[in-house]
Amino acid sequence: MHADPAEAGCRDGKPLIMEPTAEHLTGIAQKYREALLGDVIPFWERHSVDREFGGFLTCLGRDGSVYDTDKFVWLQARQVWTFSMLHNRLERRDSWLEVARQGAEFLLRHGRDEGGNWYFSLDRGGRPLVAPYSIFSDCFAAMALAEFARATGDEAARKVAGQTYANLLARKGDPKGRYSKAVPGTRPLVSLAVPMILANVTRELEWMLEPAEFDRTLGACVGEVFTPFLDPDRQVLHEHAASDGRKLDTFEGRLLNPGHGIEAMAFILEIAELKGDRALAERAVEVALRTLELGWDREWGGIFYFLDAKGHPPQQLEWDQKLWWVHLETLVALVRGYRLTGRQECWSWFERVSAYTWGHFPDPEFGEWYGYLNRRGEVLLPLKGGKWKGCFHLPRGLYLCMRELEKLAESGKAKALP
Amino acid sequence: MHADPAEAGCRDGKPLIMEPTAEHLTGIAQKYREALLGDVIPFWERHSVDREFGGFLTCLGRDGSVYDTDKFVWLQARQVWTFSMLHNRLERRDSWLEVARQGAEFLLRHGRDEGGNWYFSLDRGGRPLVAPYSIFSDCFAAMALAEFARATGDEAARKVAGQTYANLLARKGDPKGRYSKAVPGTRPLVSLAVPMILANVTRELEWMLEPAEFDRTLGACVGEVFTPFLDPDRQVLHEHAASDGRKLDTFEGRLLNPGHGIEAMAFILEIAELKGDRALAERAVEVALRTLELGWDREWGGIFYFLDAKGHPPQQLEWDQKLWWVHLETLVALVRGYRLTGRQECWSWFERVSAYTWGHFPDPEFGEWYGYLNRRGEVLLPLKGGKWKGCFHLPRGLYLCMRELEKLAESGKAKALP
Repeated sequence: MHADPAEAGCRDGKPLIMEPTAEHLTGIAQKYREALLGDVIPFWERHSVDREFGGFLTCLGRDGSVYDTDKFVWLQARQVWTFSMLHNRLERRDSWLEVARQGAEFLLRHGRDEGGNWYFSLDRGGRPLVAPYSIFSDCFAAMALAEFARATGDEAARKVAGQTYANLLARKGDPKGRYSKAVPGTRPLVSLAVPMILANVTRELEWMLEPAEFDRTLGACVGEVFTPFLDPDRQVLHEHAASDGRKLDTFEGRLLNPGHGIEAMAFILEIAELKGDRALAERAVEVALRTLELGWDREWGGIFYFLDAKGHPPQQLEWDQKLWWVHLETLVALVRGYRLTGRQECWSWFERVSAYTWGHFPDPEFGEWYGYLNRRGEVLLPLKGGKWKGCFHLPRGLYLCMRELEKLAESGKAKALP
Repeated sequence: MHADPAEAGCRDGKPLIMEPTAEHLTGIAQKYREALLGDVIPFWERHSVDREFGGFLTCLGRDGSVYDTDKFVWLQARQVWTFSMLHNRLERRDSWLEVARQGAEFLLRHGRDEGGNWYFSLDRGGRPLVAPYSIFSDCFAAMALAEFARATGDEAARKVAGQTYANLLARKGDPKGRYSKAVPGTRPLVSLAVPMILANVTRELEWMLEPAEFDRTLGACVGEVFTPFLDPDRQVLHEHAASDGRKLDTFEGRLLNPGHGIEAMAFILEIAELKGDRALAERAVEVALRTLELGWDREWGGIFYFLDAKGHPPQQLEWDQKLWWVHLETLVALVRGYRLTGRQECWSWFERVSAYTWGHFPDPEFGEWYGYLNRRGEVLLPLKGGKWKGCFHLPRGLYLCMRELEKLAESGKAKALP
């Protein structure tokens, strides 16, 4: 494998980085596979399927018991995606497809308003609770139904996925629509989340899009991720920018969400591989590493949830907490970045973030992982699922890391992009 | 003073409570006065007055330096109220009136949309940033302009205060208006915050309201605070209820905000004194004490920010944090409850909450108080002011506690209501 002591970092002239052997990589991949298939997926199969009303119960306590029955469209859709994806990409299991079907049918029956916009939440029976104010509901619904249609050939699901995708492309310039509280004109903002998630949805729907449309949309999204949001000096992404591309010295303009920035780079790395674009991969790795250096808590370990780019107090009171998805998305970005570029810092950070993640998030007693730790890494909320944590980031992260590690072990070398 | 060992709580037959002497009470009152006049008010006079654009800069770092210039209408209005109130109730100082005037003029010039609704935030120059989605902006604006008009006789301010009050009475049934994301019909909710703040605004505007209107609105608010929100078994207030008065086993329905419930009881105690209603005062004290017992962190001290009534994980990631306003409102409720009812538990809890509050929130190095501590009582954000913390809860709480303590010391006995 690639080894460059200067790049890897040295102390007293000795390289600090041990390169992983194929055997080591296979062993780690096996750990991810066991967590995915022996713990996480069975936990959601056992506890979350609502056999009475359809869809999923995602508010699960430490032991999997249901503590609330409201249904959040983000999480309903993400669970459909996860089970469909495992069926499509890992192993054809009818039981997984049945779980996906139960969610897809609930979504198709209850999830949209008359204009085809996806509600934010529903009650247990499917009656709408919270209006379609979030374009991300539509993003996750499109991903879910497309992946389900790919698994089953279900034409209704495919059609609704396509309609939803067209609808969100039309809405992306004004994602909150009439629910926006911003007074027009004073300070028009754009959000990193929009091109980032759209890149991911587009990538997910590739199989059902016209190639020209796919290339055009994906290219635009990649440009929109970097151009207005990247601080060129520090190589970190801001969450918001002025719509004319200026950086803003305001709460929104200064906001950094390290996990989000690194997750965006994981998506960009996937696109770089697809396009065979080595320069894009190097660029994404650089941003991911600089973001991680900035976001890492040198006192207690783990990655902060929010930071202010100028070091001012962020508005988010939860800024110092350690969240499961942040760490999983970071692991994906690091192992993918290592495989594609061979950059040693990716591997050393992967090992460091792994140690923190596996040492703090899993619950060995009741299974699955905690989602919310305080700054010190102590459990802040014992839930396994809630309004925002469902069957998504953890199984997806485990699956993707496993695949990356297996590919690394197979190829015998990092730096897959020439 | 009233002493009932059974009520006060005993151990081995001995009362645990030491009753405060007049000398002790005077000494504590002096501590509050010094913090108010020697520290907090000068801090805001020195750092927050925007002499260039008018209004106040409320985003102040630990040392008072300005780190953001956006202007939040809640905080602009609250600071106008605070300086006007001190002028009206504590001491006639022209310098305080000038500070209030500078804020009132900025609000009158920039604060409202064409329909007379108050924006949520403005940029430094006064251009609107965030639309009038929050009825509480109107509440604080009405309080501010009324108190300012009372201090100055300013007819324009008085008129706008009256219009705003009428407007918010008209809006109270649908406080979020077109910004509500709730789908109508599925689960109509009402919020404790609305009658609670309306009771306070009505009380504040008493001098400019028709007596019949004052009595009617105040009576309705008191009823609406208790009826739908009180859990009759535990004697604690929920934050939300179904609009038909049912308790709801949902995230919103289970939500407890102990500081909010106790603050509501401080307002109710004020009304009980006004009406000479001993039973109402006893009832409010009971709720405040039961809420405090439930909300007190037995491990690290201090009062939790949010709890779930059934002990489930709350949605609020900041649930375990210790906030300045929670502790100040609690001190006000306890000392006022003690003065009005003589209930010993109020005094013992006052001493306990005092010890925590004075031991954790003040910043002896740079002055003023921290607003946000983590569960252990460590500083989470070093700010003295931000989007939500301004010149309001701290000076008001210090002023009100000081007054209550002075009255207690003067009268020589608690239990002011016969």
